Amino acid sequence: MSTLNLGVAGLGRLGRRHALNLRDRIAGARVIGVCSPLREELGWARRELPDAAGHAALEGLLAEPGLDAVLLATPTALHADQIIACLDAGKHVFCEKPLALNLDDCLRVERAAARRPELKAMVGFVRRFDPSYQDAAAKLAQGLVGQPYLVRSQTCDLNDDSGFFVQFAPSSGGIFMDCSIHDIDLARWLLGAPRPLRVWASGVNAVHGALAQYGDVDNGVAMCEFEGGKLACFYASRTQAHGHETLTEIFAAQGRLSVGANPRANRVEISDRHGVRNECVTDFYQRFAEAFALELQHFVDAARLDQPLALSLADAREATRIGLAITEALRTRQAVEL
Amino acid sequence: MSTLNLGVAGLGRLGRRHALNLRDRIAGARVIGVCSPLREELGWARRELPDAAGHAALEGLLAEPGLDAVLLATPTALHADQIIACLDAGKHVFCEKPLALNLDDCLRVERAAARRPELKAMVGFVRRFDPSYQDAAAKLAQGLVGQPYLVRSQTCDLNDDSGFFVQFAPSSGGIFMDCSIHDIDLARWLLGAPRPLRVWASGVNAVHGALAQYGDVDNGVAMCEFEGGKLACFYASRTQAHGHETLTEIFAAQGRLSVGANPRANRVEISDRHGVRNECVTDFYQRFAEAFALELQHFVDAARLDQPLALSLADAREATRIGLAITEALRTRQAVEL
Amino acid sequence: MSTLNLGVAGLGRLGRRHALNLRDRIAGARVIGVCSPLREELGWARRELPDAAGHAALEGLLAEPGLDAVLLATPTALHADQIIACLDAGKHVFCEKPLALNLDDCLRVERAAARRPELKAMVGFVRRFDPSYQDAAAKLAQGLVGQPYLVRSQTCDLNDDSGFFVQFAPSSGGIFMDCSIHDIDLARWLLGAPRPLRVWASGVNAVHGALAQYGDVDNGVAMCEFEGGKLACFYASRTQAHGHETLTEIFAAQGRLSVGANPRANRVEISDRHGVRNECVTDFYQRFAEAFALELQHFVDAARLDQPLALSLADAREATRIGLAITEALRTRQAVEL
Amino acid sequence: MSTLNLGVAGLGRLGRRHALNLRDRIAGARVIGVCSPLREELGWARRELPDAAGHAALEGLLAEPGLDAVLLATPTALHADQIIACLDAGKHVFCEKPLALNLDDCLRVERAAARRPELKAMVGFVRRFDPSYQDAAAKLAQGLVGQPYLVRSQTCDLNDDSGFFVQFAPSSGGIFMDCSIHDIDLARWLLGAPRPLRVWASGVNAVHGALAQYGDVDNGVAMCEFEGGKLACFYASRTQAHGHETLTEIFAAQGRLSVGANPRANRVEISDRHGVRNECVTDFYQRFAEAFALELQHFVDAARLDQPLALSLADAREATRIGLAITEALRTRQAVEL
Repeated sequence: MSTLNLGVAGLGRLGRRHALNLRDRIAGARVIGVCSPLREELGWARRELPDAAGHAALEGLLAEPGLDAVLLATPTALHADQIIACLDAGKHVFCEKPLALNLDDCLRVERAAARRPELKAMVGFVRRFDPSYQDAAAKLAQGLVGQPYLVRSQTCDLNDDSGFFVQFAPSSGGIFMDCSIHDIDLARWLLGAPRPLRVWASGVNAVHGALAQYGDVDNGVAMCEFEGGKLACFYASRTQAHGHETLTEIFAAQGRLSVGANPRANRVEISDRHGVRNECVTDFYQRFAEAFALELQHFVDAARLDQPLALSLADAREATRIGLAITEALRTRQAVEL
Repeated sequence: MSTLNLGVAGLGRLGRRHALNLRDRIAGARVIGVCSPLREELGWARRELPDAAGHAALEGLLAEPGLDAVLLATPTALHADQIIACLDAGKHVFCEKPLALNLDDCLRVERAAARRPELKAMVGFVRRFDPSYQDAAAKLAQGLVGQPYLVRSQTCDLNDDSGFFVQFAPSSGGIFMDCSIHDIDLARWLLGAPRPLRVWASGVNAVHGALAQYGDVDNGVAMCEFEGGKLACFYASRTQAHGHETLTEIFAAQGRLSVGANPRANRVEISDRHGVRNECVTDFYQRFAEAFALELQHFVDAARLDQPLALSLADAREATRIGLAITEALRTRQAVEL
Repeated sequence: MSTLNLGVAGLGRLGRRHALNLRDRIAGARVIGVCSPLREELGWARRELPDAAGHAALEGLLAEPGLDAVLLATPTALHADQIIACLDAGKHVFCEKPLALNLDDCLRVERAAARRPELKAMVGFVRRFDPSYQDAAAKLAQGLVGQPYLVRSQTCDLNDDSGFFVQFAPSSGGIFMDCSIHDIDLARWLLGAPRPLRVWASGVNAVHGALAQYGDVDNGVAMCEFEGGKLACFYASRTQAHGHETLTEIFAAQGRLSVGANPRANRVEISDRHGVRNECVTDFYQRFAEAFALELQHFVDAARLDQPLALSLADAREATRIGLAITEALRTRQAVEL
Repeated sequence: MSTLNLGVAGLGRLGRRHALNLRDRIAGARVIGVCSPLREELGWARRELPDAAGHAALEGLLAEPGLDAVLLATPTALHADQIIACLDAGKHVFCEKPLALNLDDCLRVERAAARRPELKAMVGFVRRFDPSYQDAAAKLAQGLVGQPYLVRSQTCDLNDDSGFFVQFAPSSGGIFMDCSIHDIDLARWLLGAPRPLRVWASGVNAVHGALAQYGDVDNGVAMCEFEGGKLACFYASRTQAHGHETLTEIFAAQGRLSVGANPRANRVEISDRHGVRNECVTDFYQRFAEAFALELQHFVDAARLDQPLALSLADAREATRIGLAITEALRTRQAVEL
């Protein structure tokens, strides 16, 4: 039950936030090493995490004496191999979503994890740890609104006028893999993990026409039919004017729960010539800052105290599987059976 | 149970609206005459109410054959004498609020009405007829939230940059008589008409300093203690940026009812660079358009069918009495006992 | 420019409301006749509309001297033949939605109307006349939020525990023809009437399993792709616990307009042990009472003053066409090309 | 710039929360000692803060080697003497609100602090550190809504049916000193610290009549006039049914800012047979948990880095001065000049 010694791999925007959370907010954890191929990122670590050893590659980090666990905030294409390397080195591993952009990688990771059942391996579906989503899930479990039959969930990003993100389109896996993967996981979680049967998708390029060359869209809608007469509808957008809006509605036999309607930034309301209004959160990190800390605390506690994780690699694989099918449905303009 | 023949006295903004409601929205009523000292107003009536006889003075209107009732939308200073003239002429009478700017006038009117118990006389406390206020009152009566002990009520006008209203300050009776008279009536109504004991008031000139020369303010706050341990707080403002906001909160032992928080113009919500917002109603008529029709229908039905009125001249007198005490409290900077 | 003499055919719930609106709320109109095969309905008319002649069949009503126009609130299966009969008899005609349950009927009606261009024929897509939808459309036209690319629209009914409506499933045309037809019309209207290309649908029976025998569902979702890269998503439900909720969201390049989120019954907010809450409207009539009057006034004015109608029979035919395709998509589990 | 060594005096509910925040959430701080006259509280500290030395009295804590600062979460009656003792011992000191229940104590503390200008002394007006209040203050400073002229602020507690708090009435200083002291501080802060001129108050016992024997009320309203034509209105309640509600409205020349309307517990909205609703926070700690951490971080940073504090002992003294005057106004039923 001693302190968990972690290494952080990848110190981009999200990696740094995880590292600072581990330094400042997470009980029972300590960052003893980091790795990044970028000098600038290692320099940041020397200033902010002076006690952590810097490495250029994951191999060096894994060799760090006393290392218990690794947090991967690296490019998605690297996730599968890196998770396997961590597990093979006997380290617990926390990996940012999505697990992978193809199903084979997911299955390889699951096999590696099955070989090391004593290690914790978790993909960061951070929204599950948000207090509002936790509250909604608890209310469902208590039967407050009866049996859920439809989940509508959306991830809508504040528009980036510069279109900077377009250059990442080739490697993002498309809008559904990049944005809807969270919504897919939430729908499965809130509907009780039913087996997916069939998906369908459509989309438009409302603002960023340049995405079309990559077969991507800036607004996409999708549906997923599950066994047992359950449904999910997804919406992903990169073109919102008001802020970052993640909204999940759970329709159940005796009521509806909604999480995130009106992405208010805080408790301030302004009444002026624009009417009565509130400002909105601008990005996912502002919306889920607390959830990022709770998620990491959950992983750290699970690893330190050998407690079960709230979600499994199979959950991550299923989200990827549905996301890939939706992406195929968008491209082929056909329903895809699962 | 035949049609009620009405005359409309005063064809300013509100008089015209009443006249059009009588023409288009009120069942069982007919405008057979109007009176106004202004040629322009009589011209308006010739166009919009071609069947109504035009008169320069109330006396002529009262002599109109077949006249059953009079609607007074004239300057407040004339109300008492005109109501009495109508009653003495054997006509039902509906008068815009406030009944009068002094207590003697109220009492004179009550005496005149007492001499003609067969006639209906009513002051237009329109908010009582608003469906939302009706719903709140019904919920109170049903005991949904228990016994009320505190009413906070406010009338906040959209700022008029031109300050046009300042010129009416000498005759308005001050901000509390002009704006809060409705709130005073609502508080009495919702608290069960307890006897007022003591009032206190304060105010500022936030925008329209010119009001100070008339002893008036553009923002005023007041409190009224009632017997039985009940309280009311009032706020009147002429300087809002977002719209016309009338808000009444009823605090009761098992809950609170609020009527009018966020004076939304309609069911449209806008999400754009200003945040998530709704536009607001801009004036009392937009807010209470339906109530004005329901109020008039209530009066017409009462007169036609000899049904009891929902509010009495004593209610109007009490509102005036409290309003005058608050106005005195503002001027003298002393609590005023009632 | 004289008064329009109307006949009302069908005096069920909605027919009566239209008739009372014509009697009490609509300027320039008069009900001179009614028709119904039911004695009870004619009895109602004798009491409420004593000046209107009662007829057992439309033929009798059409022969009524001085009749200018007919309002049809009859079963959908009769609409096409009845509209044509009215037009052939030289009467303006207002017909409740939907125009018909098959495309041939729609086209027959359009041909009949083309033969009588001097007559007004309109299908009651009442939501277009709701002040909030009017405001949203005006804001779109003004360019407040830029070019719209996605409309999501839903019609969610308060659950009827008795399942009474199940017996109407065979004749309703299914949930999409019955409920979504309004949403389809709104989407076309708000997106600028683009040509529909393809639809897809799915659904579940969450509460009323008995619907399955009719191939119907109690919750249905659908998408429609339009030319020019525009999309619509529809949701229809018969199983809501909180009230009747019609919500339309218009996503546009610089913002989003939403009409009807939180179907609040009025301006009352309750704070008690259940939290902070508002009650909701319970049915479409409570939600759209004002729109029903405005819609009828629009038709009456158009007929009296020979003004253009705000919507055409082609609009009604297109809504039916898309609705039929969605219904087929639900049944065949295939996307349907239009 | 090393770690600040703190002692925590008083380990009741709030003292424990501060201690745990110092242990888990505050950077640059360490609890090296605690003091409490209660064995149970010291036992708690041994379990949760095993490295902190336990003392029965403040004297012992002050003698702890290396101690830099003290956090006082002790009964209000002890605050003044204990702050002075800390300052005289050369320790920075953070004290829970209110500073004291009489003005002399405040002035004694200010004199003691003046003798040790190198030490930081701060009273915990936690709401100033809440992100929403910070946002409102920043918007005011930016001039978003112009010059503020009226602040309305309220502290409304969820009703405690047991009336447990009644027993604390004799030592609480009354409802205004206990609850409104925060609102008074907020009003001063947001209005730019104008000089108070006059106060007035009233109150009722709506539920807990037993308070009357102590001259206290369970619902109190008060007003404060400031120089320069500024006003504040306060409302304190112990009898809310829906939750703990702190609401502050700032009326300014070009708009209004509101902080805390609808004390929603989180981002979950429930639509069920009760309507559309959200649950509410139940106590001040749930509402201000983040602010408590930010407040403490501010104090720790100020002490460690010799940075200026955001609020002064004079602020705390002025809040007490106004609170005492309001309490006197309630008792004497007279306006009190300041």
